[in-house]
Amino acid sequence: MTSPFSLDQLLEPVQDEMASMREVLSQELVDESGNVSDMVAHVSRFRGKQLRAALVLLCGRANGNFTAEHPKVAAVVELIHLATLVHDDVLDGAQVRRRVASVNERWDNQTAVLLGDLIYARAFHLSTTLSSPLCSRLLSVTTQGICRGEIDQAGERYHFDQTQARYESIAGAKTALLYAAACELGAGYPSGDDAVARELRQFGYELGLAFQLIDDLLDLTGEQAVVGKSVGNDVEDGKVTLAVLHTYAQAEDPVRAAIRDAYTLPDLADRRAQLRSVCDLEPGLAFARARAEELMASAFGRLTALPESRAKRSLEQAGEFILSRRS
Amino acid sequence: MTSPFSLDQLLEPVQDEMASMREVLSQELVDESGNVSDMVAHVSRFRGKQLRAALVLLCGRANGNFTAEHPKVAAVVELIHLATLVHDDVLDGAQVRRRVASVNERWDNQTAVLLGDLIYARAFHLSTTLSSPLCSRLLSVTTQGICRGEIDQAGERYHFDQTQARYESIAGAKTALLYAAACELGAGYPSGDDAVARELRQFGYELGLAFQLIDDLLDLTGEQAVVGKSVGNDVEDGKVTLAVLHTYAQAEDPVRAAIRDAYTLPDLADRRAQLRSVCDLEPGLAFARARAEELMASAFGRLTALPESRAKRSLEQAGEFILSRRS
Repeated sequence: MTSPFSLDQLLEPVQDEMASMREVLSQELVDESGNVSDMVAHVSRFRGKQLRAALVLLCGRANGNFTAEHPKVAAVVELIHLATLVHDDVLDGAQVRRRVASVNERWDNQTAVLLGDLIYARAFHLSTTLSSPLCSRLLSVTTQGICRGEIDQAGERYHFDQTQARYESIAGAKTALLYAAACELGAGYPSGDDAVARELRQFGYELGLAFQLIDDLLDLTGEQAVVGKSVGNDVEDGKVTLAVLHTYAQAEDPVRAAIRDAYTLPDLADRRAQLRSVCDLEPGLAFARARAEELMASAFGRLTALPESRAKRSLEQAGEFILSRRS
Repeated sequence: MTSPFSLDQLLEPVQDEMASMREVLSQELVDESGNVSDMVAHVSRFRGKQLRAALVLLCGRANGNFTAEHPKVAAVVELIHLATLVHDDVLDGAQVRRRVASVNERWDNQTAVLLGDLIYARAFHLSTTLSSPLCSRLLSVTTQGICRGEIDQAGERYHFDQTQARYESIAGAKTALLYAAACELGAGYPSGDDAVARELRQFGYELGLAFQLIDDLLDLTGEQAVVGKSVGNDVEDGKVTLAVLHTYAQAEDPVRAAIRDAYTLPDLADRRAQLRSVCDLEPGLAFARARAEELMASAFGRLTALPESRAKRSLEQAGEFILSRRS
């Protein structure tokens, strides 16, 4: 399945605001200190699809709620995301991020920890320059949830008997909470009390969880050259994602033992290749994809309350884009 | 030189507010998630002298500026400090913090990165519940400065020809900025424009820089059992602190080479012992101590604008306490 439209089309209803958002972002990614200046310039090359920022702006438009501060709110969300990426790469020992060397690879882990901290602090500072405290409050709560999700994920490494609910709760915390906050802020900022914003928060959560499910699938099946970042990390790191959980649950004991061995035996050169050779992952992959599609259908259902608009159509396209992505 | 008074005496003018601050802090150091709950409980055992929180409260009292929110402001400052400690221990590979295992030692580096992130986010969230944005703004700028100082410090490792000004600018960023912010917030919160607060900011900066100078001396001369944390780390990590810079600058070439060797030769069991055996550090130690005393004298000079009060006397005692500390 390939996406029938380009990302640019999807962004069309908010293209001016995306340009303003990028301007804010590039102002934030400079630094007067020589060392730090090189580092933040490097991080700005991680620029991805900026889907989270787009969701802020599209949800604002779709709910008829749009202020001059929306591009700045979107930039804060992207900065938080960028900080999590820098620290994620330390946690995962990843070498490549969006076809660019990770900070830990280009410099070292210590630098990556500090640079991530600096970008978090810059995001919070930018949020304090907004007229409403909603963005600061919601994103500082969201960041705690992301960290909690990552910590819980580490605690579940090599746990092949996790329930699907536990897996989804962790994937939701580490990824979907920021999508949820992006949508809630877009639809509701500067007010903290808007029924549509609450519904779009759920839309964002389901979209984000589907995104993470697809991300986990790509880590199992994708090629680094296509995905643009290291793949096979989850198996290397002991993260048992939904396709593997499902495969393990359905497997006989000898296959289960072989799956555990693929994750744990010393000196395996390519654990992912080993995993794929000892079991048929296809039903598990199909199960995880079906779950992502189910989440997306639920997310789309939440858009029915919105009047028809170009922005609403883009929110649907964002969902289709996530389901069809190869990178 | 031993301090002629106890820390409790120093805190006497703000003891009720310190109790309120500790109550806020302990509410912030709980978590509903099982994994994270154990970790934040562990971190709460790092509780030190809470000098930064005390400075918020004492500067408020000394400037006749005290609100019901001051204890919460002080708790935010302590939380930021706690987050920096958790990440510092990762950067330094430290095993012991205030006689308790560091988070990276008790769990691992990944956990320590995430837990530090979570505590930063919690600090920022707590600051957004205050009525004035001053605390959020000032502390998010301060946190960036701390990170920049740490990054710059890493860039100066094994640089034996750093100027004193460069060393102090880095030590100032990583340590003194938070002291400065604590004093400024205490004296000025909730207003961002107060002449005494600006002067007390400078008082805090000089006090904090003196604190770091003494800290660096203790790392060179103290014993782990007395200091309560790993010692000798600076030499192990290639950090050339003021006493060594001064010694190196005064030394002949063969001694310089021996100093560089103590920092860099492979397989040295105790680099600090090696360093102390190849040169006479005493004049350098005395130079650094004299500089700390000079900074403190300048800091005390900034208190002259304040009316006499018990709180003002405590600010002076905080300075004396820092100069006399052994741990």
